[in-house]
Amino acid sequence: MSEIFNWNARIYYEDTDAGGIVFYANYLKFFERARTEWLRAAGVSQQQMSQEHQLMFVVKSTAVEYHSPARLDDELRLTVVVEKLGRASVQFIQEAWCGERLLTTGKIKVGCVGVESLRPAPIPGVILASISV
Amino acid sequence: MSEIFNWNARIYYEDTDAGGIVFYANYLKFFERARTEWLRAAGVSQQQMSQEHQLMFVVKSTAVEYHSPARLDDELRLTVVVEKLGRASVQFIQEAWCGERLLTTGKIKVGCVGVESLRPAPIPGVILASISV
Amino acid sequence: MSEIFNWNARIYYEDTDAGGIVFYANYLKFFERARTEWLRAAGVSQQQMSQEHQLMFVVKSTAVEYHSPARLDDELRLTVVVEKLGRASVQFIQEAWCGERLLTTGKIKVGCVGVESLRPAPIPGVILASISV
Amino acid sequence: MSEIFNWNARIYYEDTDAGGIVFYANYLKFFERARTEWLRAAGVSQQQMSQEHQLMFVVKSTAVEYHSPARLDDELRLTVVVEKLGRASVQFIQEAWCGERLLTTGKIKVGCVGVESLRPAPIPGVILASISV
Repeated sequence: MSEIFNWNARIYYEDTDAGGIVFYANYLKFFERARTEWLRAAGVSQQQMSQEHQLMFVVKSTAVEYHSPARLDDELRLTVVVEKLGRASVQFIQEAWCGERLLTTGKIKVGCVGVESLRPAPIPGVILASISV
Repeated sequence: MSEIFNWNARIYYEDTDAGGIVFYANYLKFFERARTEWLRAAGVSQQQMSQEHQLMFVVKSTAVEYHSPARLDDELRLTVVVEKLGRASVQFIQEAWCGERLLTTGKIKVGCVGVESLRPAPIPGVILASISV
Repeated sequence: MSEIFNWNARIYYEDTDAGGIVFYANYLKFFERARTEWLRAAGVSQQQMSQEHQLMFVVKSTAVEYHSPARLDDELRLTVVVEKLGRASVQFIQEAWCGERLLTTGKIKVGCVGVESLRPAPIPGVILASISV
Repeated sequence: MSEIFNWNARIYYEDTDAGGIVFYANYLKFFERARTEWLRAAGVSQQQMSQEHQLMFVVKSTAVEYHSPARLDDELRLTVVVEKLGRASVQFIQEAWCGERLLTTGKIKVGCVGVESLRPAPIPGVILASISV
């Protein structure tokens, strides 16, 4: 089990809906921002990955539970934990917190694929080394 | 097990991302459009539900598997099946198809809550009657 | 001045914000859906344009005035009028209506560019012929 | 003419489209993030404004010119300048930069309205004082 990576996201009007709360689909965006910054912190850029290796990560499955809502102006803390690191896929456990309140938990599986073919491909060794702790 | 409700959605630039395919989080939007039209077809409007009953449906959990990507200009067929109808919640099985190709499957659970309190509340009888087949 | 093309769009939760109304940036999406369907009605597909001609339309400028808000469940009627058809650009006047109520007016300029270079390029004759009335 | 306020935004997949660049409508979101943070830096929270004064800012008009595209992983610098401060409205000039490259310029007019009525209302004195320089 890897350590926890944290990333913050502020809630703007764009993130909310007429229910007065954050639109649930947007937690997938927040989780991705956190995963992207986790990758970047490990020295991996997705632009580079696509240009140098002709590879990209695509999301294979998402399972999200919504416990408590967030509202305009809230500042969310998003967590990233690698649950399982495969040869061609990574499985994450992620949470969204507002202060001491747990808002959302997610289990996100991403796969490494060819940019053109969209076929599964092994994660390049140099990237695997960067994201293994 | 209820019958299958179908709703179509066209893919525009707004739905895609730099991977050249539909951004995965957007399937939650497409699934919701289909559920909303399924509700409307049953004679239930969410504006009415909020104004007359001070109630709304909120999403409690989503589990989505991404099998195959959609692209610009594709026309998707979205399905809605009620898997389980509770007193204060509904569980749906949904799929996204492009022609004969299954793109995405989802299991979406929504709960009925008070507009102000966001606390679980029984689905009004008149609405329950409309959506039970 | 060309004739008016109409396209409808339903308002879902995804389109609204915590102000209880449609998020203003989303009118740009609705306008684009209408322009895309106007193109399609003229026999032009953007996927084709990108694959056969290595060209795409990009938005160069948008000017939108917001007169009256739309809400959940509203059905909008979007209009498309070609104001000016250039060699490498098209200028549109667009409106969003809800029943007899004018919601939004927009002036949108799009340019034809190379898919890779993003440099301005003449609109192919076959497409120009299709969209000239 | 007020001084320039700056706010940064990173580009994620959610912001891009199948053209490989940032979807133009999203600059309206980035501009709003910057205006919101400019307000917050002046000590004004929109949640407070809505709860204490039953008022909110709504966008009345937007005029945006797109000069140069942004891509995945780019970090944008967004600027906020108050062009004109009225009794019930504020007019902003905003720009988006990527390094030394000017991407987008916008002229955004927002109006102060009642949360329920959506009718124009004077900006409260305490808020006007905070945002006047």
